[in-house]
Amino acid sequence: MKVAGRDMRAVWWTDEGVAFIEQRRLPHAFETGLARSVEAVARAIEEMAVRGAPAIGVLAGYGLALAARRGEPLEAAYERLLRTRPTAVNLRAGLDAVRGAAPDPDAMLAAARAHDEAEVAAGAAIGEHGLALFGRGTRVLTHCNAGWLAVQDWGTALAPVYRAARAGLEPFVFVSETRPRLQGARLTAWELAQEGVAHALIADGAAAHFIQRGLVHVVLTGADRIAANGDVANKIGTYGKALAARAHGVPFYVAAPLTTIDPTTPTGAEIPIEERDGEEVLGVEGVDAEGRWTRVRVAPGGAVALNPAFDVTPHELVTGLVTDAGIVPATAQGITEALRRAGRAPRD
Amino acid sequence: MKVAGRDMRAVWWTDEGVAFIEQRRLPHAFETGLARSVEAVARAIEEMAVRGAPAIGVLAGYGLALAARRGEPLEAAYERLLRTRPTAVNLRAGLDAVRGAAPDPDAMLAAARAHDEAEVAAGAAIGEHGLALFGRGTRVLTHCNAGWLAVQDWGTALAPVYRAARAGLEPFVFVSETRPRLQGARLTAWELAQEGVAHALIADGAAAHFIQRGLVHVVLTGADRIAANGDVANKIGTYGKALAARAHGVPFYVAAPLTTIDPTTPTGAEIPIEERDGEEVLGVEGVDAEGRWTRVRVAPGGAVALNPAFDVTPHELVTGLVTDAGIVPATAQGITEALRRAGRAPRD
Repeated sequence: MKVAGRDMRAVWWTDEGVAFIEQRRLPHAFETGLARSVEAVARAIEEMAVRGAPAIGVLAGYGLALAARRGEPLEAAYERLLRTRPTAVNLRAGLDAVRGAAPDPDAMLAAARAHDEAEVAAGAAIGEHGLALFGRGTRVLTHCNAGWLAVQDWGTALAPVYRAARAGLEPFVFVSETRPRLQGARLTAWELAQEGVAHALIADGAAAHFIQRGLVHVVLTGADRIAANGDVANKIGTYGKALAARAHGVPFYVAAPLTTIDPTTPTGAEIPIEERDGEEVLGVEGVDAEGRWTRVRVAPGGAVALNPAFDVTPHELVTGLVTDAGIVPATAQGITEALRRAGRAPRD
Repeated sequence: MKVAGRDMRAVWWTDEGVAFIEQRRLPHAFETGLARSVEAVARAIEEMAVRGAPAIGVLAGYGLALAARRGEPLEAAYERLLRTRPTAVNLRAGLDAVRGAAPDPDAMLAAARAHDEAEVAAGAAIGEHGLALFGRGTRVLTHCNAGWLAVQDWGTALAPVYRAARAGLEPFVFVSETRPRLQGARLTAWELAQEGVAHALIADGAAAHFIQRGLVHVVLTGADRIAANGDVANKIGTYGKALAARAHGVPFYVAAPLTTIDPTTPTGAEIPIEERDGEEVLGVEGVDAEGRWTRVRVAPGGAVALNPAFDVTPHELVTGLVTDAGIVPATAQGITEALRRAGRAPRD
């Protein structure tokens, strides 16, 4: 995707280290960061300077290649990067792809680049396959950011939206703001505006209302991990939208590359759900009237918040998985067959 | 309820005008306001300095008494106050109670006071009846603020919580923050802390997750209008919680005085849903690190938001209505009988 006319990805390799778009400052400032050490890469993931399951996998892969380049112990680097965030399985996929080329630094960098290109290609393929869900003027409801910032290029849930827009189908997107970190309001709204796609922000709690009123044709989200039976872990708030979609007969699709499927996790019950700092719920960051970056506290002093970062949507509520290998049923059989066709063993 | 040891209500009459707690500044500052004219009362309601269906009804009633005291034209005052907010039926109830005593200013003030006392008594009665839903350590999930700030004293949804706490049952409350105006994070968390009730804030999107995990025993919200068939209009985000409760067999109760029932509105489809300024979604107000009141913008410049203030939960999802006349089935028959027992004609 282009930013101000320049082709950009969310993460890229440089001779000085791994560079990335600083997603915490968007949409108010466009800044890039540079991680010169494994520790700096790990912190960029933990602190969500870069987020989105595929993007953090690519970043972690480059981080491991950076460790090799700098002569750091590879196993320690692998473990440090792996434990940054527990839910997204793409993180391990990126790390494993690069570790498989160890110990040669050049081979490891080549593997990191190949993983990067594979995720970009997967996003493009998801866009092609997901285009089948769109007619003229289709109104989509999405949650969080599953666009190119989350996936290097194109995106997962947003990839078909971009394809539909470029095909002249004039899609419309209801953007759920996605508390507490507001990735919908900050990142998805920014991406859609850059691409000229019509959209409106809504409070997370308003999604069921718009579905009930018949205004949403399809709900389309990304995923952080898909279990072997088709259960989907995604950003907190996804499950409620799936319930509302089911209550009103609206299809609920999850867009993700096959790398987001974890055949070693039998069901959603086994997916670890990251608990983040309650401070994220107690306040909000943005820019004040003078454009200064400011955090405001909303809750009373002393208040406590619970802040699970993801929830699990049971596969029964998922109409289908929009993958780089086509639209796949969210069932154990559908997933097994898709992985087999793609040359992956069901338990790889 | 007491604030810093002093008995307070959300709204009260003074010789200079109608006084109120300035709810937009809570929990960071405790300020009171004074409306010296009908226009000032109307603005306090429109701008949500005072909010909550019963509280705005009481405030509007005093506002009409103020018009009489000042010799302002009563019909114009009535219409001005009635059109401040379209959804809550208590607004009309408060105005009608006071207009019924027109044109004598003293009689109108007495009627406004009587309406005030009746709402307070209703809140206390809701607390008594709702206590039946609580055992030791019952965990409630609530939305928005249906506490004493919304209802002069006690509250609707929170009245049984306060009663349970005072009875030593140690309830716990999941407080849904309630975007966009964050009445849960600002007002409900503040009320619960003042009263010493254990609670945790959660993002609105996390409610379904906690219900799914079996951590919520009962969902309990207020209402802005209840139709003759039991459909409930309440703060945006309520409907999604009702769907999640149903999906997991968790009871979903709506607490409201009988005055919130509008027998002239056949179903939820006829309840007007207020559309508020999208700016409420595009940013957030709170205090910065130095304690200064600040609004921060979250969304990109030029972004558009849709901001319905309420949604409608169909009566099939409502386990029961916790009213001042007992727990009533959310059905046409249950409502008709409850109104008849209370001496109200079904179409009054």
